[in-house]
Amino acid sequence: MTSLPLVIMGLGSVGRALTAQIVQQRSHIRDSYHVDLPVCAVSDSTGLIGTRQPGLTDTELLQICARKAEGLPLAQMEGGRRWTAPADVVREAAGPGSVVVDCTASDATVPALLLALEEAHGIVLANKKPLTQSGALYQQLTHDTTGAWNLARCRWEATVGAGLPVISTLHRLVSSGDAIARITGTFSGTLGYVMTGLQRGQPFSQVVQEAHAQGYTEPDPRDDLGGVDVARKALILARGMGLPLEMADVTVTGLYPEDLAALSVSEFMAALPTLDQTYQQQCAAAARQDQCLRYVAVVSPDGLAVGPQTVALDSPLGQLAGTDNLVEISSQWYSPQPLVIQGRGAGVEATAAGVLSDIMELAFTRFR
Amino acid sequence: MTSLPLVIMGLGSVGRALTAQIVQQRSHIRDSYHVDLPVCAVSDSTGLIGTRQPGLTDTELLQICARKAEGLPLAQMEGGRRWTAPADVVREAAGPGSVVVDCTASDATVPALLLALEEAHGIVLANKKPLTQSGALYQQLTHDTTGAWNLARCRWEATVGAGLPVISTLHRLVSSGDAIARITGTFSGTLGYVMTGLQRGQPFSQVVQEAHAQGYTEPDPRDDLGGVDVARKALILARGMGLPLEMADVTVTGLYPEDLAALSVSEFMAALPTLDQTYQQQCAAAARQDQCLRYVAVVSPDGLAVGPQTVALDSPLGQLAGTDNLVEISSQWYSPQPLVIQGRGAGVEATAAGVLSDIMELAFTRFR
Repeated sequence: MTSLPLVIMGLGSVGRALTAQIVQQRSHIRDSYHVDLPVCAVSDSTGLIGTRQPGLTDTELLQICARKAEGLPLAQMEGGRRWTAPADVVREAAGPGSVVVDCTASDATVPALLLALEEAHGIVLANKKPLTQSGALYQQLTHDTTGAWNLARCRWEATVGAGLPVISTLHRLVSSGDAIARITGTFSGTLGYVMTGLQRGQPFSQVVQEAHAQGYTEPDPRDDLGGVDVARKALILARGMGLPLEMADVTVTGLYPEDLAALSVSEFMAALPTLDQTYQQQCAAAARQDQCLRYVAVVSPDGLAVGPQTVALDSPLGQLAGTDNLVEISSQWYSPQPLVIQGRGAGVEATAAGVLSDIMELAFTRFR
Repeated sequence: MTSLPLVIMGLGSVGRALTAQIVQQRSHIRDSYHVDLPVCAVSDSTGLIGTRQPGLTDTELLQICARKAEGLPLAQMEGGRRWTAPADVVREAAGPGSVVVDCTASDATVPALLLALEEAHGIVLANKKPLTQSGALYQQLTHDTTGAWNLARCRWEATVGAGLPVISTLHRLVSSGDAIARITGTFSGTLGYVMTGLQRGQPFSQVVQEAHAQGYTEPDPRDDLGGVDVARKALILARGMGLPLEMADVTVTGLYPEDLAALSVSEFMAALPTLDQTYQQQCAAAARQDQCLRYVAVVSPDGLAVGPQTVALDSPLGQLAGTDNLVEISSQWYSPQPLVIQGRGAGVEATAAGVLSDIMELAFTRFR
């Protein structure tokens, strides 16, 4: 039996879904793979619960998640204690051969991740932010000290396309020497929803308000509409192709003009109808040419760009509906037709499943 | 530097393409991954060349491939020697921690593969036959003695969809506990070519003769048209889902009637026009309903079936052109929309690249 003690940082919706999936899959994973996944500790931005082996019981884990879902911070729960530095979580809870899982959406975990690698633990990220700071930090997290990829210690599949195998496929191609010419795709369930709404003829303001009301967007919808989240994913793919780029190198075209950036959220929502006519005209013009609008990322050695694009209605991107993601990889072997991966690219459960698949791949992989 | 000494069994078109790719990628793989891939020996159905470390030089490898391409069997080349039992290749050439690569299309390699596992080597298969004999043999090749998946020692991605990440994606889903409801797809570049030709209005006899003349089919086109090759792929996927099935459980509908099975190849080719009217009528009937014919495999817990099916023209399968493969995986997380993987699913170079990706994954993985 291989044991991978887990330390889960971040107990938002993805962290809680991951915890629930681990509890639910525990016996399947033991029986089928002879892998044991004790959860030693969980943490949030306030504190942590747990110590090294033997780990929290499944009952404790589910209770902690339930109370966290009600809004109680970990530091205030029974057994919870405040951490003073983010790396405390690793220092206190990660025993030999642990895997530290980052389900936060915060830059603050970086020292914890670096300490984890230094102490020869594995790391798995659903969190894009550590991988989209400087190229030097990306290198430190994903490569070993000799400069080689550290795929035996670090996985980050869920940062792009939730559970879709985008990064693992890219790694398969790149590691066998296939030359990637271009990656094109949609990488935001939220913006997919908005674009499909526009295509159906809904006013921009209405479809954004609807997405906001249904919780498909961030609390401030500009965090999605601005395109920065998609830009982060594009940068992660570019770095996976070996391109030495930074966030500043991504050309980002957002879905709202600069002069709406300074408004409060409610002012922004109120100002949305001023954009309706522009989008209505753009969509009508596209429709007249059998095209539609999609929010597309293009990653190639020539540069990175994310923004709205017109695509043919009968193209794969044009046929995409709702929150599905679609990724096309053009390379030496996948040419002229690209390799295409398509499916649910957002959502808490699919993202958590992608994280769990990464944990399992580390279980099958030698820590070096 | 991790060293994975390779023993390559089978020096047909895939084995030679793999050898050429290894030679070409050697320095990229050393620099980027700190992995060394010496080729210790190569074998064909007549004999082998090579011994354990340090392996054949790149110049020797390319010379051997060139002479093999001219038709010279290995046993007759300088340095070549006849083997008496297939496992001789492993016994004579595989040093500690080797990877034995099966690029043949033969049942004869099974004893060599079993010996390789017994001696704690890794194995990588492009050869479907060992994995589609008895369920017991599949289990022995892909699981360890405790009954757990042996993904750290055995990979077989290139057996389905060439270099497309079908099996690795299935493993990611299955290992995280996602419940697979159904896999649907086209898994034959040859039959894709035939079906696209029929759709364009070509007579069946003409499109088969064309595919035969261009080398897209096996020497006896019935090996493709009969559907057994697709059935093997369907069985490999079913076993990957954990279904305890055998080849006899696959319902195979071929593209020619039973009474043409006993003819010689030239008699069969001459008899093809007798089938033209049937296919012309089927295609016309499908077209009237905005449908077309595709050769489809369906894998589900309810059973395995491969054969021609009508699909909607505007469905992903209906839009597939030429030799591309398309795979749809429906599961708990990928529902109602499936996870889709599409791209070149045949061809010597893409298949060899899939084998090389598998070798790299073993390099990143602990032998247990």
